[in-house]
Order: sequence, then structure tokens, then C-alpha cells
Amino acid sequence: MSDPIRKLTEIFSEFPGIGPRQARRFVYFLLTRQDNYFTTLVSLLGELKESTLLCRSCFRFFPAPHNLQTELCPICADSHRNPKLLTVISRDVDLENIEKAHLYQGFYFVLGGSIPILEKIPEGRIRQKELLHIVEERIKKHALEEIILAMNLNPEGENTVDYLEQLLKPLSEKHDVKISTLGRGLSTGTELEYSDTETIKNALKNRA
Amino acid sequence: MSDPIRKLTEIFSEFPGIGPRQARRFVYFLLTRQDNYFTTLVSLLGELKESTLLCRSCFRFFPAPHNLQTELCPICADSHRNPKLLTVISRDVDLENIEKAHLYQGFYFVLGGSIPILEKIPEGRIRQKELLHIVEERIKKHALEEIILAMNLNPEGENTVDYLEQLLKPLSEKHDVKISTLGRGLSTGTELEYSDTETIKNALKNRA
Amino acid sequence: MSDPIRKLTEIFSEFPGIGPRQARRFVYFLLTRQDNYFTTLVSLLGELKESTLLCRSCFRFFPAPHNLQTELCPICADSHRNPKLLTVISRDVDLENIEKAHLYQGFYFVLGGSIPILEKIPEGRIRQKELLHIVEERIKKHALEEIILAMNLNPEGENTVDYLEQLLKPLSEKHDVKISTLGRGLSTGTELEYSDTETIKNALKNRA
Amino acid sequence: MSDPIRKLTEIFSEFPGIGPRQARRFVYFLLTRQDNYFTTLVSLLGELKESTLLCRSCFRFFPAPHNLQTELCPICADSHRNPKLLTVISRDVDLENIEKAHLYQGFYFVLGGSIPILEKIPEGRIRQKELLHIVEERIKKHALEEIILAMNLNPEGENTVDYLEQLLKPLSEKHDVKISTLGRGLSTGTELEYSDTETIKNALKNRA
Repeated sequence: MSDPIRKLTEIFSEFPGIGPRQARRFVYFLLTRQDNYFTTLVSLLGELKESTLLCRSCFRFFPAPHNLQTELCPICADSHRNPKLLTVISRDVDLENIEKAHLYQGFYFVLGGSIPILEKIPEGRIRQKELLHIVEERIKKHALEEIILAMNLNPEGENTVDYLEQLLKPLSEKHDVKISTLGRGLSTGTELEYSDTETIKNALKNRA
Repeated sequence: MSDPIRKLTEIFSEFPGIGPRQARRFVYFLLTRQDNYFTTLVSLLGELKESTLLCRSCFRFFPAPHNLQTELCPICADSHRNPKLLTVISRDVDLENIEKAHLYQGFYFVLGGSIPILEKIPEGRIRQKELLHIVEERIKKHALEEIILAMNLNPEGENTVDYLEQLLKPLSEKHDVKISTLGRGLSTGTELEYSDTETIKNALKNRA
Repeated sequence: MSDPIRKLTEIFSEFPGIGPRQARRFVYFLLTRQDNYFTTLVSLLGELKESTLLCRSCFRFFPAPHNLQTELCPICADSHRNPKLLTVISRDVDLENIEKAHLYQGFYFVLGGSIPILEKIPEGRIRQKELLHIVEERIKKHALEEIILAMNLNPEGENTVDYLEQLLKPLSEKHDVKISTLGRGLSTGTELEYSDTETIKNALKNRA
Repeated sequence: MSDPIRKLTEIFSEFPGIGPRQARRFVYFLLTRQDNYFTTLVSLLGELKESTLLCRSCFRFFPAPHNLQTELCPICADSHRNPKLLTVISRDVDLENIEKAHLYQGFYFVLGGSIPILEKIPEGRIRQKELLHIVEERIKKHALEEIILAMNLNPEGENTVDYLEQLLKPLSEKHDVKISTLGRGLSTGTELEYSDTETIKNALKNRA
């Protein structure tokens, strides 16, 4: 007996942040939907990979335009942006918040992951070869001036920063490209009484 | 330009308990899956409604068996269960926890919803006609003895209990069918110091 | 150098549920109070033990009346209450919620604690001798009919119930005193989907 | 009838972060303490104000030394600290975390509060006169170079910063004293995906 309720529950349990109980609710939720909701979902899923491209420059996913087949996402194709700045992020979702801040006008590179502490094969976690290739290209073509490593401020993010700094050092030194990290200090909502020593140190050092 | 990333994010945002941010993570998660994961998901979704039946007696969803086309779920088709007991529940998911308790041996009826307080069209929220029909049938065929109204102990659940008691009263009185509700008192983890008055009242009344 | 700020912080850190950080806030809060707030606090603390009595029947704390020196709290001195019922609770705070329910009209006994699982000296955790003495007295003088063991529904509470049942068994059997525990089932807010098996079992068994 | 249990519960309910239920637990907790615990608490409370001094320079509380009567706390009396730096904080508790960071070697001033948005009498919330006096003194005696406004990064803290900047502007301009605020950006634990726009803006601006 095929049991799609159980099998779909298992599939949904693999979704990020979803346990078996909520996965089961998803399935029963779907069972009570109208047929057209269902058809839309299945057709969008079918379309998703076909109509989504991986940008060959920043490696983020973007919806494929109808008219012509491009391999560059709208940001990478935008000639008004500053080609001397490259921000390296871990995942696609990080990009949206940076764009929302309307402050940064350079380009991006999506690593596709980050490097856990003690990881033995760090190059298997991120798009290392692609990063080096893009950086070299941007140095040659656009005289790249600065690479911003925009990682989360947690152990895995800081470990990734350390790794990338080592990785990019030869290129950076040879071509005089600055490697920077995001500013540290108080973030929205921070109260001194409940802050850790590291945050207070950074807040004092970076006072302005 | 068709944008399946945005559209799928909207669809996932309708899933129970999922906001736009988590919906977006689902989409990026899917984009990084291998093709076979994808194919499995799409094919299971396609199958879901086809290979799932709505039991014509208890109105819960169940996986359709291969060999023959039945309209009764395994529980309703089980001749070893006690036909004199019927438990009315709001949703499919409630059934699994009751079955796990391995104490109840009667049958079920899934209302498909519950009735919010001040709802003007309560009969539009639940399978009212179907419930009355099944109860009558079980009275005639099996001399039904007890209907257990197994609702959540919150305002909506209690309102549903009140409504069902009124609805079933004529049948209950005419055929001498007992209408009961789940026992109330301390539930696992309850501490007296943090209990509300209602729970303490029930715990005292139902002491044993 | 005497440092009352540090020492008071340590004292407040022993208060139930208070960590060193909140304890320190208490001290700075006190430092900014007016002198009369301070005097009131110190004088109330000084008075607390003097003007509070331990009821010699139920062993709860109660404010000593001015006029005469009694050893019975207002509940134990109330001749309108039902002397055939005795409820055993762990701590003073449990009593207030039971009284608020306005359902119980019998008397109380405060154990002064509960018995953790695997405790080797259970009699050191509770007022065991006093309980046995009061029960015997209530049997002789008032023909006690029921002892209600009103413990939290958690492992420590259930362990205490088991211990008390064994402890009281000889008296209970000899004098035909019923020993009961609080009713179990759904408590306010319980939802079937998120209930544990034990709660559902109790809710089904105690349905009414 | 005097009821110290109820009255003490009321007093403890005024402690920062304490509701009536926890206040009541404090009282019962105290009732079960040994007499010497009690005596210690009462005597420490009695001592607290007597043996604690308010530093006449930074206005923080500090334990009075035995040998001689000073009006300067150990930090303000420390001739090895840098007299050209003054950090303004809201409360005593903020100071401890800054000291723990072992980075700052200047002096402090405790405002004694902060200014809520739309407050009509801001000068009633903080030690305004005292601040101006100390700043003038430090300019004259020590050629003060920088005042660091170390406020929480929330609306009330930012409002206080705005108010202090206006207040100190004349002195700052006349004597060329820099007014700075704590650095902003990612704090420990910040993840880009869950960051607000303001934090990301600051993190980009202050990258290094």
C-alpha cells in the first residue's frame, strides 16, 4: 500500500525548521485545499528549477527572464553598480536584507554555505573555486578595490571569515585589494547591562 | 517575467504556522535540492489527492489501498472495534494522539473544524449533516450507547461542545445515547501554584 | 573592607528564581529608594517571623492576630468547615489557589516540601510525623472520611503521592478513610493535537 | 490585624522585574529560612545605605572604606586612569560590564536614569547639573578630550544621546571636546538574515 500522507510528512520534515508534527499538519492542510491551489503548487514546483537560473557571476538564484536567456542576475547585469566592491555572503537570503538597507551599491558573491568550526574539508562547504575565479576576474576587469566578508557574527560565521581571509590573502596582497568585515558594536536593541564583553569591546573600539 | 520564487513563497506562506520569512527559506531550500528530491515531492503531491480517500463513515483522510476500492478507512472497517462508542473530533490530527493512547476501542467522526465563539453560521464550519446521518445510522445498526465529544479545552472547543450537545440532544434523548466529554483536571506537568481556578475546580470535583 | 552591595547581591541570589544579575539590580534599586521605603522593608522583615505563626494543625504560616495568642490559623479555627475532609499540599502557596476556587470546604495539611525521585531520606523532606499525628487526631475527633493528596502532576509530585499512599495506608485501612488524588484529564488550554499519551488516557478514562 | 506576609509581598512586588506571585514566593521562602539568614539580611539592609557612599565625582554607589572617609570611589581615585576620557552611562549596572571588557581606562559619570521619548521634564530624569559641573571641572583640570555617551541602543537610549549632545554642545565646541557614541554594527550572535535594516546599515558603514 502506497501511503503518500506518511511519505509527504517525511519530505516536509526535511524542510528547514520543520518537525514531524508540523509536517503532518502541512499534509492535512493540503488535503483540504481546493484542486486549483494544488495544481498551482505542483506547477510552480515543476517550474521552479526550470524558470530559475543560477547567476554565473554571483551564484544566487534568480527568476529567468522570458525574452532572452541570460546567465546574469539583474544585480550582476546592472551597469550602474560599483564594480570595485564585492560582498561575499553565505546564502541567498542574506542578500535581501543587505539590499533593503539601500546603502550598498557594489556586487555580491554567494558562497552557498559557511564553514563549521573543526570542519576537515572546508572547501566542500563553499563555492571556493568559483569565488577565487570571480575575484580574479573582477580584479582584472574592474580593478576590484574591496572585498567585504559579510558573515553572521557567530562562531561558524567567524570561522568562515578566518578561512576566507587566508584564502584571499595572496590575491589581496598581490593586487592591493582591501579585505574588510562588517562593523561590530551595538546592534538595534542592545542594552549595555546584558551585553557580552566582546560586544562592549567592539562598541568602545568602534565608537565615533 | 514569471517569478516562481516569489509565487512559491506566497503559497508556502499560507501553510499553517509559516510566515513569509520561513516560506522564503523553504524555496531556497528546494532550489538547492537534487533533482530526484524534487521529482519525489512533485510526484507525491500529484498522487496525494488521488491516492487518498475520505472515509465515508468517519470522514478522515486515509491512503487508498491498492487491491480494491474501498470507502472505509482501516479503523471504520475493523470489525473488532466497539460499535457502541463514537468519538467526535475536530480534525484528523486529533485522532492519532487518541489512537496512540491505546485505550479507546470505539469509532470516530471527524467534524472537519470547530465553531468559534459568536460564529453566525456554525453549520458551515463542521460536517453537521454528515454527523447526524452517521449517528442515526450507528443508533439503528449498532445500538450506539455513547458519543464522546473530544474537543480542545479552549473557548472554541468548549463552544463546539455546547453546540454539539444541543444538536445531538433530540437523538440522544430519544434513543438513550449518553453524550460525554473528556475528563478534566490536572494534565501532565500541571503545578497547583500556577493553575487557573477552573482547572483546580475540575481537579477537585473529579478526584478519585 | 565590608561590601554590603556584594554581600546583599549574594543573599538575593538565593531567593527563588533569582540569578546574580537580577540580585544586583535589586541592590541598586534599594540604594535609590527613599529612607522610609527602606525603613519599612527592614521593619517588616524584622516583624515577619515574630508576627507570623505556624499553625499547629495545618502547619501553614499565618499572621498572628493582635488580641490573643492562638495557634490555629483562621481556616483551622473555622467551625463551619467540613472536618471529614483533609487536603494534603506541598507548600503554603498551593493553598491559595485551592481556596480561590471556592469549592473545597474541608481542612488542609502543609507538608512543607515534596519528595524527589530516588530520595533516600524521604521523611527528611516532609512533615511526616506531624502528618500522621494530625490524621490520627482527625480520625479520632472528627471521624475523618477522606484525605485528598493534592500534589503537582509532575514526577516529583507523583512520587510524593506514591510515598504518602504507602505511609497512610495502615491508618486508611484500619479506619476506613478514603485516600484520593486530584482528578486528571484536560486542563484549561489543553489541545488534543499537542497532548501527551498520559493526559489523553486520563481524559478518556475520566470522561463524563 | 497587621499582616506582614501581605505587606512584604507588596514591597517585593516593587522590586525590578518581580510580580505579585514571585513576591509571595519570596516571603514564604524567607519564612522557612533559619534565624541567622534572616538576621544577616536585615543587618545588611540596615548597613547598606550607611556603608555605601555616592561618589561625588561619578555619582555611582560604592562601599565606604573603613579607614578613612572618602568621597571618591576607587575608580575616580585611581591616578593611573586616563583623565582625558569620560564615559557617561545611565546606571551603575552599566559600568560593571564596561569594566569587565578591560579596554577602557578613562573615567565615568552615572546619569542615574535615561530620558523617555516625549518626556516633558528631561532634566528631572538625569543628573544634568552635576554632569555639566563635572564636565567643566574635567575640562579645566584635565583638559578633557572626549566624552563617550554609552547608552543602550533602543529608543530611550537614543533619545538620551540626542538630549545629551544638545546639552553638551556649547562646552564641547568652546573647549574642543569630542563627543562620541558607542560603535554600531553586528553584536555577538547577530545573523544577517534576521537583522533589521538599521543594524545592517551600521555594519556596512562601520566595516573595517
